[in-house]
Amino acid sequence: MLSDIEIAQQAKMQKITDVAAKLGISEDDIELYGKYKAKLSYDLIRRVKDKKDGKLILVTAITPTPAGEGKSTTTVGLAQGLAKLGKKVIVALREPSLGPCMGIKGGAAGGGYSQVVPMEDINLHFTGDFHAITSAHMLLAAMLDNHIQQGNALNIDPRRIAWKRVVDMNDRELRNIVVGLGGKAHGVPRQDGFDITVASEVMAILCLASSLHDLKERLAKIIVAYDYNGNPVTAGQIKAQGAMAALLKDAVKPNLVQTLENVPAIIHGGPFANIAHGCNSVMATQTGMKLADYTITEAGFGADLGAEKFFDIKCRYAGLKPDATVIVATVRALKMHGGVPKTDLKTPNVEAVKKGLVNLEKHIENVKKFGVPCVVAINIFAQDTAEELEAVREHCAKHGVNVALSDVFAKGGEGGIDLAKEVIALADSGESKFAPIYPLDMSLKGKIETIAKEIYGADGVNYTKEADKALKEFEELGYGNLPICMAKTQYSFSDDPALLGRPSGFKITIRNCRIAAGAGFIVVLTGDVMTMPGLPKVPAAEKIDVTDDGVISGLF
Amino acid sequence: MLSDIEIAQQAKMQKITDVAAKLGISEDDIELYGKYKAKLSYDLIRRVKDKKDGKLILVTAITPTPAGEGKSTTTVGLAQGLAKLGKKVIVALREPSLGPCMGIKGGAAGGGYSQVVPMEDINLHFTGDFHAITSAHMLLAAMLDNHIQQGNALNIDPRRIAWKRVVDMNDRELRNIVVGLGGKAHGVPRQDGFDITVASEVMAILCLASSLHDLKERLAKIIVAYDYNGNPVTAGQIKAQGAMAALLKDAVKPNLVQTLENVPAIIHGGPFANIAHGCNSVMATQTGMKLADYTITEAGFGADLGAEKFFDIKCRYAGLKPDATVIVATVRALKMHGGVPKTDLKTPNVEAVKKGLVNLEKHIENVKKFGVPCVVAINIFAQDTAEELEAVREHCAKHGVNVALSDVFAKGGEGGIDLAKEVIALADSGESKFAPIYPLDMSLKGKIETIAKEIYGADGVNYTKEADKALKEFEELGYGNLPICMAKTQYSFSDDPALLGRPSGFKITIRNCRIAAGAGFIVVLTGDVMTMPGLPKVPAAEKIDVTDDGVISGLF
Repeated sequence: MLSDIEIAQQAKMQKITDVAAKLGISEDDIELYGKYKAKLSYDLIRRVKDKKDGKLILVTAITPTPAGEGKSTTTVGLAQGLAKLGKKVIVALREPSLGPCMGIKGGAAGGGYSQVVPMEDINLHFTGDFHAITSAHMLLAAMLDNHIQQGNALNIDPRRIAWKRVVDMNDRELRNIVVGLGGKAHGVPRQDGFDITVASEVMAILCLASSLHDLKERLAKIIVAYDYNGNPVTAGQIKAQGAMAALLKDAVKPNLVQTLENVPAIIHGGPFANIAHGCNSVMATQTGMKLADYTITEAGFGADLGAEKFFDIKCRYAGLKPDATVIVATVRALKMHGGVPKTDLKTPNVEAVKKGLVNLEKHIENVKKFGVPCVVAINIFAQDTAEELEAVREHCAKHGVNVALSDVFAKGGEGGIDLAKEVIALADSGESKFAPIYPLDMSLKGKIETIAKEIYGADGVNYTKEADKALKEFEELGYGNLPICMAKTQYSFSDDPALLGRPSGFKITIRNCRIAAGAGFIVVLTGDVMTMPGLPKVPAAEKIDVTDDGVISGLF
Repeated sequence: MLSDIEIAQQAKMQKITDVAAKLGISEDDIELYGKYKAKLSYDLIRRVKDKKDGKLILVTAITPTPAGEGKSTTTVGLAQGLAKLGKKVIVALREPSLGPCMGIKGGAAGGGYSQVVPMEDINLHFTGDFHAITSAHMLLAAMLDNHIQQGNALNIDPRRIAWKRVVDMNDRELRNIVVGLGGKAHGVPRQDGFDITVASEVMAILCLASSLHDLKERLAKIIVAYDYNGNPVTAGQIKAQGAMAALLKDAVKPNLVQTLENVPAIIHGGPFANIAHGCNSVMATQTGMKLADYTITEAGFGADLGAEKFFDIKCRYAGLKPDATVIVATVRALKMHGGVPKTDLKTPNVEAVKKGLVNLEKHIENVKKFGVPCVVAINIFAQDTAEELEAVREHCAKHGVNVALSDVFAKGGEGGIDLAKEVIALADSGESKFAPIYPLDMSLKGKIETIAKEIYGADGVNYTKEADKALKEFEELGYGNLPICMAKTQYSFSDDPALLGRPSGFKITIRNCRIAAGAGFIVVLTGDVMTMPGLPKVPAAEKIDVTDDGVISGLF
């Protein structure tokens, strides 16, 4: 089979104006970025606001193997399947980050015959959204340090700066740095560090903002530091929110592209799935629902993390009511949860599959707790046996959940028609009675414990002294009503990546907590989270090249 | 009078497709970025390559006052004047940097009724060129440090890293930093620092490259460090040039916008005028000359710096033959050169003007040394008297040079018609016999001394020990045939900003030298050059805002 970039470069793309026309959008309502990319205008977004919503479908997954279960690919393929059935559909995805393309994995925008295109553009600068986010973030950092340098009227404690710097590059050398050296004219010496841009709170804010106005209000609330009395200092006090919003005025507009089969795709925003909520933007999802009858979106990591935050943070803030959920599973991952070592995952083993189904079962139970009906999509591989697949089907049937085989990587939309039919039936059934799992007026610890017990299946929660202190401080400062953003390993329901399947009898340990007052959530850390990746021994960048005509290779 | 941004926002912009049509460019040959910005396609650039060149006119200036003499404004206004006379004209300018917009001065794209638009976009992210340059630069930095971290096969001396990091923001806190702290997994500790993006060698390379192919070859030649044996280590040895070029594949395409009077403007590239050559891109200028009968461009600072580098570096590398030069002067600046203090420049003083004319005279002599005919443009102000203006005219007449009054700030193209007529006459005269002032096979010191004596009027050149050593090393390494890029104060012909007028009896002191092996020049430093600006006590960013509809204010 061809590589992803080869398939993408052979795609017969339609002009983006033609793709827009399928959604009833005229050329005046989009801003073109070349022939195959566009941004949706404010005018359009405002004009469709009162239209009836189409159906919203979330694609999530079981606890994944390190190779991933093909969630983005299934999301794209499902949308292509719906289109093949004649439905008016939009796929709404996150934007990939430029930095990691240069590291281990290359690009990320689906795979095989279920990708979004133009693949190279989407993976590199795209329409500049992440660069705008970097600029806005770095402006705030520069204004903050300049405030201290120019007299520090706000009495900021340079030991308690909460605003690091960001760059969209894998650069471990910038993780821990000392800045402001060189004497009085060159700033105030202090410890600092860079995160990758997708970890910026500005990214999370852009993804949760309902408008440019809301964006600016959220930016003003960012806590950048604490003063010598322990009071938070905000971006609003630094007077940065206006210029930051000006820098983001185009970045907040959702981007329109297409899948390999010319299905409209809105790709917008891409916050981290651990220290942030890991979903595409609210404005993209909402606009998608106004323009199409079915909007297919996804959330980062497995359902314990991605779906939970999608429901409890994004849907709650945006007032979204998802109509159906797809849980992506692979026979390979089920075997792993059944105790098979990584090296043996290609060997047929129906017993291991049966044993591993407890993991899928718990994810199904969880999604049902949010009141959203679900279907299981098996992303099939050549080595999967009929017996193994039947075992999955049988088990799910006991829980009243259907299973659809998905072969969208190799076959595109054609391979997603069965899944599309299941999704249509579920979404159109009107069965969804969505509600978040915890109310906002619960205490912060109450919310954390609800997630740990209800979703993870933990017996309880331990807190370190730091976490305890932080949570108390946040409640005292009046942030007790924020939702929780869990940062936990994606490889287990527990906080121990080695505990596969459906672990029980464990407790979750909360090591520390951070506040994202602008985005509007409390980040709860169960372990170390790497917010600045490094490059491997042989970076993917060494293989990336471009011809004299601008054709990129090596971005796979 | 209205502010620049108010005038810009009232402009009746034409669709960029209509602007392109004036140049005979169809919609297929441009890539749209919204309705009012576009990039010229590779196809177009290649297709016009063998067409006959139009005339090339450089706009430069006398030794400026700190407020500037209105060079960009005159450049735009002159193009508008030519258009009013029915000529097919393009103005080719540099792109402004985002960082400084947040600092003291706000935006920069001409002024009054001689601006390029959309002004806010051009000043902020524009089409993302500077962000792409930042990404390419930062990728190389990350790959370099990663190489050292992963075993340092090239034997790089971490004390001799020549590649700093960049960001397009005024951020003094990042001037002097220590990176790689935190232990073995987090890089190798060393001193580092950030420059502003326009100071990146990648910017200079983009501006001197004749094609994407040439760009990649130049990128590979960048010297990023030295090994323990003192040998240079290049970006090519780090294997970064392919991915860097891929990141720059769209940034190398010139951007098409328009002036307030809908004259086509190509705005592309913006290297520093001190540590780089300070001109817009070769690809932009060359393509402009293929598409229009007159291409008007400018170079940074006064003619001693800007014009000299334009002629000796850009025109030499690109094989350009400029047809005429405009030297912009103001009565205000002439008075300053005649000894009047800054506070008295508004008071009529014909004697001071006469005394200050020696400065203009030397610039005229210099431009003639390059074989290019010139005209003087007086950028007029309300307080200028008829006597003062007559004094300028009389003096220039003695040197056989005409003077045109320019009122393009207040009147747009109408105020530039006289100047346009002079320029047409000069450019069409066929008088230009352009040649650089020194041959490339001269020794490095020979070239420096030629510039110092011929252009600055110095008696000679002193070298510090460091400069001496560096020049010797560059010649030994085989870089002796590169042209010179002088970094000198723009406020005097000498290296002392206090020596106004036409100083004599002075020597230039060369403090240090750097090599830009990819761009292809030796940077010769006569003093400290600030490559990372800071923010002032009240940054312009505090006043910048955006409405709920995306209309920006406070960017003046």
